[in-house]
Amino acid sequence: MSWNSFGRVFRFTTWGESHGPAIGAVVDGCPPGLVLSEADIQPWLDKRRPGTSRFTTQRQEPDQVRILSGVFDGRTTGTPISLLIENVDQRSKDYGEVAQAYRPGHADYAYDAKYGFRDYRGGGRSSARETASRVAAGAVARLVIPRVRIRAWVEAIGGDAIDTRAFDDSEIDNNPFFCPDPGAARRWEALVDSARKAGSSLGAVVACEATGVPAGWGAPLYAKLDSELAAAMVSINAVKGVEIGDGFAAAALRGEDNADPMRPGANGPVFAANHAGGIAGGIATGQPIRVRAAFKPTSSILTPVETVTRTGEATEIATRGRHDPCVGIRGVPVVEAMMALVLADQALLHRGQCGW
Amino acid sequence: MSWNSFGRVFRFTTWGESHGPAIGAVVDGCPPGLVLSEADIQPWLDKRRPGTSRFTTQRQEPDQVRILSGVFDGRTTGTPISLLIENVDQRSKDYGEVAQAYRPGHADYAYDAKYGFRDYRGGGRSSARETASRVAAGAVARLVIPRVRIRAWVEAIGGDAIDTRAFDDSEIDNNPFFCPDPGAARRWEALVDSARKAGSSLGAVVACEATGVPAGWGAPLYAKLDSELAAAMVSINAVKGVEIGDGFAAAALRGEDNADPMRPGANGPVFAANHAGGIAGGIATGQPIRVRAAFKPTSSILTPVETVTRTGEATEIATRGRHDPCVGIRGVPVVEAMMALVLADQALLHRGQCGW
Amino acid sequence: MSWNSFGRVFRFTTWGESHGPAIGAVVDGCPPGLVLSEADIQPWLDKRRPGTSRFTTQRQEPDQVRILSGVFDGRTTGTPISLLIENVDQRSKDYGEVAQAYRPGHADYAYDAKYGFRDYRGGGRSSARETASRVAAGAVARLVIPRVRIRAWVEAIGGDAIDTRAFDDSEIDNNPFFCPDPGAARRWEALVDSARKAGSSLGAVVACEATGVPAGWGAPLYAKLDSELAAAMVSINAVKGVEIGDGFAAAALRGEDNADPMRPGANGPVFAANHAGGIAGGIATGQPIRVRAAFKPTSSILTPVETVTRTGEATEIATRGRHDPCVGIRGVPVVEAMMALVLADQALLHRGQCGW
Amino acid sequence: MSWNSFGRVFRFTTWGESHGPAIGAVVDGCPPGLVLSEADIQPWLDKRRPGTSRFTTQRQEPDQVRILSGVFDGRTTGTPISLLIENVDQRSKDYGEVAQAYRPGHADYAYDAKYGFRDYRGGGRSSARETASRVAAGAVARLVIPRVRIRAWVEAIGGDAIDTRAFDDSEIDNNPFFCPDPGAARRWEALVDSARKAGSSLGAVVACEATGVPAGWGAPLYAKLDSELAAAMVSINAVKGVEIGDGFAAAALRGEDNADPMRPGANGPVFAANHAGGIAGGIATGQPIRVRAAFKPTSSILTPVETVTRTGEATEIATRGRHDPCVGIRGVPVVEAMMALVLADQALLHRGQCGW
Repeated sequence: MSWNSFGRVFRFTTWGESHGPAIGAVVDGCPPGLVLSEADIQPWLDKRRPGTSRFTTQRQEPDQVRILSGVFDGRTTGTPISLLIENVDQRSKDYGEVAQAYRPGHADYAYDAKYGFRDYRGGGRSSARETASRVAAGAVARLVIPRVRIRAWVEAIGGDAIDTRAFDDSEIDNNPFFCPDPGAARRWEALVDSARKAGSSLGAVVACEATGVPAGWGAPLYAKLDSELAAAMVSINAVKGVEIGDGFAAAALRGEDNADPMRPGANGPVFAANHAGGIAGGIATGQPIRVRAAFKPTSSILTPVETVTRTGEATEIATRGRHDPCVGIRGVPVVEAMMALVLADQALLHRGQCGW
Repeated sequence: MSWNSFGRVFRFTTWGESHGPAIGAVVDGCPPGLVLSEADIQPWLDKRRPGTSRFTTQRQEPDQVRILSGVFDGRTTGTPISLLIENVDQRSKDYGEVAQAYRPGHADYAYDAKYGFRDYRGGGRSSARETASRVAAGAVARLVIPRVRIRAWVEAIGGDAIDTRAFDDSEIDNNPFFCPDPGAARRWEALVDSARKAGSSLGAVVACEATGVPAGWGAPLYAKLDSELAAAMVSINAVKGVEIGDGFAAAALRGEDNADPMRPGANGPVFAANHAGGIAGGIATGQPIRVRAAFKPTSSILTPVETVTRTGEATEIATRGRHDPCVGIRGVPVVEAMMALVLADQALLHRGQCGW
Repeated sequence: MSWNSFGRVFRFTTWGESHGPAIGAVVDGCPPGLVLSEADIQPWLDKRRPGTSRFTTQRQEPDQVRILSGVFDGRTTGTPISLLIENVDQRSKDYGEVAQAYRPGHADYAYDAKYGFRDYRGGGRSSARETASRVAAGAVARLVIPRVRIRAWVEAIGGDAIDTRAFDDSEIDNNPFFCPDPGAARRWEALVDSARKAGSSLGAVVACEATGVPAGWGAPLYAKLDSELAAAMVSINAVKGVEIGDGFAAAALRGEDNADPMRPGANGPVFAANHAGGIAGGIATGQPIRVRAAFKPTSSILTPVETVTRTGEATEIATRGRHDPCVGIRGVPVVEAMMALVLADQALLHRGQCGW
Repeated sequence: MSWNSFGRVFRFTTWGESHGPAIGAVVDGCPPGLVLSEADIQPWLDKRRPGTSRFTTQRQEPDQVRILSGVFDGRTTGTPISLLIENVDQRSKDYGEVAQAYRPGHADYAYDAKYGFRDYRGGGRSSARETASRVAAGAVARLVIPRVRIRAWVEAIGGDAIDTRAFDDSEIDNNPFFCPDPGAARRWEALVDSARKAGSSLGAVVACEATGVPAGWGAPLYAKLDSELAAAMVSINAVKGVEIGDGFAAAALRGEDNADPMRPGANGPVFAANHAGGIAGGIATGQPIRVRAAFKPTSSILTPVETVTRTGEATEIATRGRHDPCVGIRGVPVVEAMMALVLADQALLHRGQCGW
């Protein structure tokens, strides 16, 4: 079944394992006539690429993308766009331990329970490496919605949150944490360093905002824009929670405190508070779309943890190797990509560009 | 497009407006041979039915369900099951105000932006009345997964949470709040009463647990069991956030604190903490599935709120009429229904009952 | 799985058995703002209705349709349109024989093999009565494509074909056979009468043409317009073959004889011969869409035929009761409905009306 | 939209143009644990490969397939199988004429009407080269249904049909026409040679039979096994008609002549005549599945034909280059592949292997 495809009309399918020859995506439903080359995709892959600072895994992957189809004379043709990224740094190592014992918190046991068989090298299909394919597809999606501005950032690491009053959009790219608050960024350096040195890991909260989404995008009931976004965010490795607008905070309020006064505006009503995060009844209100995703700390830690072997014996396992001390950081471009993919889908639906 | 259908193999489609002659659902993909009659569905509809206590809306709807197809000699045939519920209490009133001005926090403006036209009587298709169809379909879904036990409850109202140490499963049905903590239930009486009398409303957090789900159900990547559950919960009116397992709490932890030791068990490994809420890599681990949904306070309050008219003028609106002071309460059977619908879908997929 | 739904964006789901309380369809994806009432649907149902001449089954069904949702103030709202048709003439009879022995040529054995259980009353879900739901949904589809003219007729009965030189469009509704050739219509009276009196049945070929379909509708590869039409036609009870344009005749030609010269025209190129039936590479060329469907003679005949019982013993069965001597005749409005449903789907896709 | 994907649970997506760097397919939903290597796929690609006799195009393509994902330790993992075939023989030539004028009978005009832009080199996406991807995917599908035997052959070329009494299964691979009748094969040599030398082309009828399909596969109404097969066959380039079982011949019969007596058999009832081609009510009866496809003569002929330019002027065009004199011949392995893909889908559905 289409477990590896996402989207309704702007639809992409990813394939590939972390230790196979390559990974990739096929983007189906992209309109014809868009100017597209590898140069439009590579910057987003570079943003996600590992090894860019000491706060991410040291695995070295150039993540160079190749376009194999769907583009002619520098423009999309409306036919499937095949994107290919070769795997380069597959450090040969002994996977014996991982092959025999389940890493707690990883998908190892669940995969065996489902498939009775798994590619245990680096997690195989369950590896976060698959998200490179999403980022590549997301770069194509961005070309479909040029007027929409998508921006994600890290809002908290290990429980240490930014000061929203210090929020500075221009700071996000000035630090290795995609942090909009310089003060928090400084604190996180020490925090993430200590976790990294201790072979530990940290959870994080990533926020994402999309502006320029016209009122009316989305759909009622079982394809609500917020349902699509929730599914998209939870589909990202390590994400365990999602909020639309004020999310759980709204559940603690009275109606008056959550009320969202509407006032006449140049381009339709303006919502004074936008508690709803730009979505009502599953449909965009024309206000900024606001989503938040909770990333758990990765289970790849040096501290040995009790587990069981494939044959059911008790044992202990510690995860060595090159891991992200805080996966939420590199989750930022992935969250942006999923937002772009969901919105491109809506754009085509509502613009009537569903014929390809 | 299939905005009104949900599910992959156990698939249902709902139809109907709150003020039309009837609402209903067509359940497609139900296996043949299941014993089914209206008596299997009615109790769940009664659990959701309005007017059962002073803490819910006083609209009187018998919500009697009729099965129009798909059953022969008391058993399902594998063909579509058509369920019909007549609308009875459509109190004739003047909708002039709602027709002209948008209710802030409601879907009124978004629907007009999308469709350019809407059935404004009681919210039309965006009315929570649609959830009766889900509960009816969910009752059929439960018959597909007899070994799975699904239980939802209210965990907090207006920020006042239960004491988890006082959690008593048997208390849930002993109070009008589906509250497992008798102490909290007493406090909530006063809290909800005051909100009701003030014409205000309260947000709530609903938790749901499913036990008996075998390891292996679910799928990787874009059909993760947690993605399906997140989409299902966010598709419920007023839900603005979802957590799987520990959700946002996990984002504040270090890897060691979120570690989930696995120990040998009679039926596969046992997870000591189940922080993950029974799902890893999108696939069930065999542990209890745990989900939490945040319900915002309904926007239907007596306090006038600024808004705009269809023609863009500034005005004020207060929502009179019969409304739930805390929609989260009646959200409990709906959350259970969506859980049942998602799991029935998985059951058929993994049992190989996808042929109908 | 969605065995009972058809269409991508203009999507309908049918439900109901020939001997249940009712049958119906839910039409999802219909644009908002279309003027719609029962009066727009009833004439097409009447065209298909049994008992209108001695050449069709004498079962009496008023086939009165009711719209239960999706329409407000006489216009569609963009939400699901629920259509309901009550079953009236379910003559109580003894189905013992059909319950125990499989009718050769019917779906009885196949249904038992698949479901292990079936509603044997009048064929249950496999009854051609289901096509009434298609005709009702097709009537809504026609409103989506007002500029497209769809016309079907019977081209041959029992091997006796019309004289294409005598083709007169205005004659089609002047005889009980939807026959465009008055001479053939006269011959068919005797032919069908003799079959009816002998308790026999006759096969037929139904042709359908759609004009006004703009070049560009359709899609390449796995959703070719001709693929969609072929699937739609073969989904009709008793259809065993489909031709697009010249169909099998083209397979006997040389390239020169099948060449289709293109000449400049007021609205794009004109194809001199239109051998292709208005479709090239799966996409409409702007020429008339031409499809032909082969209806087998119904297996419901009085002549006893060898068969087996549910328990595997050899026996004989003859099908008594009220049957169509030539199901192809009443197939005409069904073929038209399927053509309308496929084209409405394409219209929405290419007009960018996929948002509902 | 998924115009480039086919199948419900065994689902494949193809990508690539005839003159791009490569073409390929992603097979999603293949069960884990199947032994698979390039060696299982290559023989089927070789059967379709051009240039194997003087009766097919002389374009030289090695069509070497590479598996990029979804296989570990020689077995499928249940994750997507990415198949890649490089394009080698893209003879550089001047496409100016084809770029400016539409080839009658080709998809040129329809593509421009739809996309406003096309890759005119060798037909781009509309080139029959895409069928190599189907054959590769079909080879994987065959591994899913080892007990099903699929066999296709050419039944007629240019109207010259085989003598069914001379049918000899073992002859099919003994001649370049996949012809089961040695006498016809001899006649076709001269026939196809003359067409080839004259720069003409010939239509053909391809028949396909699948044995070993258990009763019960398939589904009612809108996913009938015959509907799926009809859509699959018509999706093949140049196919303009499809017959299930006796097809159009049945439309000329009386019920008695089309009756299909059932007799007790070792493995369920045996149908004496199997007029229905192994399908009743959309569901397999356990008898051989029989399908016939009509291939038109390719429009690529040397005789100049009237046409129009992109700018609407009248002109003439003759198609030079390396073309198949009878595309139906190389259509044989493609028809077999589509049959295998449809049946693999059904196998997984009915075996309950839909979880991946």
